[in-house]
Amino acid sequence: MQPVTWINIFDVPADRAEGFSAIWHDVFAPHFSAKPGFISYRMHRATSPDARFRFVNVTLWESAEHIAAAHDERFRELVSRPELDGITAHPGIYEILSEG
Amino acid sequence: MQPVTWINIFDVPADRAEGFSAIWHDVFAPHFSAKPGFISYRMHRATSPDARFRFVNVTLWESAEHIAAAHDERFRELVSRPELDGITAHPGIYEILSEG
Repeated sequence: MQPVTWINIFDVPADRAEGFSAIWHDVFAPHFSAKPGFISYRMHRATSPDARFRFVNVTLWESAEHIAAAHDERFRELVSRPELDGITAHPGIYEILSEG
Repeated sequence: MQPVTWINIFDVPADRAEGFSAIWHDVFAPHFSAKPGFISYRMHRATSPDARFRFVNVTLWESAEHIAAAHDERFRELVSRPELDGITAHPGIYEILSEG
């Protein structure tokens, strides 16, 4: 079965980038990678200063149902942390249209 | 040497998605994949209707200099096509912050 791609595009003010990296690494990566259906993730950080979005995470999951289940009550608790105030996430489920 | 990741996030109105897919496949994918330093690309299309960004392209290149050189005069001609009016691109160079 084809994996499902979850892409989350983060709008993070420049002075919050280090804190965001830390919370991603310490809190969110362990949360998601322990969930059923998780395959792998790759978190990208912009190196070009003019990039509109500072962080882009691409995660592969076994199914959309696994993604939904991973965004559980514990996730909603984690995401309400004050360290994340002012950070906007643009998540979505994607298919691979083409590659080469 | 570590590849460099180029991510381009496209804001495409729903009624333009098919046309955008076609022009990507017919025009831009061949342009970039023929360039020196190109390694691979993966163009993603949102399947969740509430995704803020309809298309996300992730391309690996040998270096940032190759990326700059691929955005040449021919590219600027291609990108000025009227079919692309109203479509906004948010490109940037990224590093892999973490993966697992």
